[in-house]
Amino acid sequence: MNISFLGLGVMGYPMAGYLAKAGHNVTVYNRTAGKAEAWANEYGGATAATPAAAAQNADVLISMVGNDDDVRQVLIASGALAALPEGALLIDHTTASATLAQQLATLCDQHGHAFVDAPVSGGQKGAVEGILTIMAGGTPQAFARAEPVFQAYAKTITHVGPAGHGQLCKMLNQICIAGVLAGVAEAVHLGQKSGLDMQKAYQAIKGGSAQSWQFDNRVPTMLDDKYDFGFAVEWLRKDLGIAISQAKSVGAALPATALVDQFLAEVEAMGGKRWDGSSLLKRYRR
Amino acid sequence: MNISFLGLGVMGYPMAGYLAKAGHNVTVYNRTAGKAEAWANEYGGATAATPAAAAQNADVLISMVGNDDDVRQVLIASGALAALPEGALLIDHTTASATLAQQLATLCDQHGHAFVDAPVSGGQKGAVEGILTIMAGGTPQAFARAEPVFQAYAKTITHVGPAGHGQLCKMLNQICIAGVLAGVAEAVHLGQKSGLDMQKAYQAIKGGSAQSWQFDNRVPTMLDDKYDFGFAVEWLRKDLGIAISQAKSVGAALPATALVDQFLAEVEAMGGKRWDGSSLLKRYRR
Repeated sequence: MNISFLGLGVMGYPMAGYLAKAGHNVTVYNRTAGKAEAWANEYGGATAATPAAAAQNADVLISMVGNDDDVRQVLIASGALAALPEGALLIDHTTASATLAQQLATLCDQHGHAFVDAPVSGGQKGAVEGILTIMAGGTPQAFARAEPVFQAYAKTITHVGPAGHGQLCKMLNQICIAGVLAGVAEAVHLGQKSGLDMQKAYQAIKGGSAQSWQFDNRVPTMLDDKYDFGFAVEWLRKDLGIAISQAKSVGAALPATALVDQFLAEVEAMGGKRWDGSSLLKRYRR
Repeated sequence: MNISFLGLGVMGYPMAGYLAKAGHNVTVYNRTAGKAEAWANEYGGATAATPAAAAQNADVLISMVGNDDDVRQVLIASGALAALPEGALLIDHTTASATLAQQLATLCDQHGHAFVDAPVSGGQKGAVEGILTIMAGGTPQAFARAEPVFQAYAKTITHVGPAGHGQLCKMLNQICIAGVLAGVAEAVHLGQKSGLDMQKAYQAIKGGSAQSWQFDNRVPTMLDDKYDFGFAVEWLRKDLGIAISQAKSVGAALPATALVDQFLAEVEAMGGKRWDGSSLLKRYRR
């Protein structure tokens, strides 16, 4: 299959690599061309000078970029969507708004393409190991075409509903993480302020009803005062911003999520844009 | 061993039962005498008319009551501690303040007793099945005496530090739960408001980095709109109140915990004192 991949960041680079390894005919495009060349040297695929050139002969066009604006730029403003052969499949792996996903679905429909919004979780580690979690939105037909593509780099693939619902599901995922991080950060903060042996407290709490993935995996790194474990504060804030906008559009309120987002703004002000989300603890320690 | 157990609530009743089953000579006291008689009929132990009478011949005196005031009442004001034979071991399983635990430790020390604060987690189910988690504070000598007692009804037993540190550890546990519940409630709220298929979203999120015990176990019951799964809002609020007081005493702030506590006050106002903590969702749905 001819697959064109737009965006070779820390996620896209290894994901596109897994597609090449799976035997697909992969063409890559990246804003910084040097990275596309490095990728082609490593995996033996082709590079395209523009998103439209990449889209030209693609059966499947995949985007994995930063945010809503980046998606609009690389797919629409660039002419990529217009260059895509009729009947192609567009997959957007970017974590973006549900509104954008619905707009892309409508645009694709008008041009005879299929569309799936497919934000991922599992971070850089999941991408490098090819074990990402994918939350997909789209018609059953579009999903059926996308699923074999996903299998190259994902372990858990769920079709959660129509276009936009992959994005909604990812928002829920990030909201859960925000809440968990608040609880864990406040717990560690109080324990350390109170002189509790946090290694022992970690062992005592780990297996019970207060358990979470973040507790199990991030408390040990927080106790080492290390915050370079993947998903960065600035990306988490981008995702929480999307969730808060979505909440506004449906008349829901997310006060705890908004509180964590504002605390993370303070972490950014401390120089923590690239620290992982557990650096929320540093806001408490100020 | 002669063990006297004060407080036969939903936790204490089965815990005292496991002590009897383990072959100890158990005497029970309960404020409502009928429950003590029912317990003695079921397990074949003895009843005492007052806490002091229960303490009189005890090698180990255990309290499992509601809050700090109840502990002071049943152990100190009642004369139980004064009646305890020298060299006995006092275990308080009540979730109470670290300050109270330190006061009890001092009192015990003055009378030649050993003391362990040992709040539990695992809820009514954990007590009934004899698989509680215990977070214990006290001297190594006191803990060594308490551990074989705990083994009758606990699966995970951790000695986290000196007197009061069992309570501190339990506070951290409850703070983590508060954060997790906020994230889970806001996620479910946004998903439902947005028309997302929550069963599919649950499956998609379950195994990843947003995972938590509460997510795995309470989201399905929240989606059924059922809130009668154990640990009640009024008890969670009591525990969060203890944590917030502790934070004040050491100059720490717990803004997310305090926010959840206030939301749970609103749940109580809706008639939810006895609902489980995941009923936090109902506050968002108002």
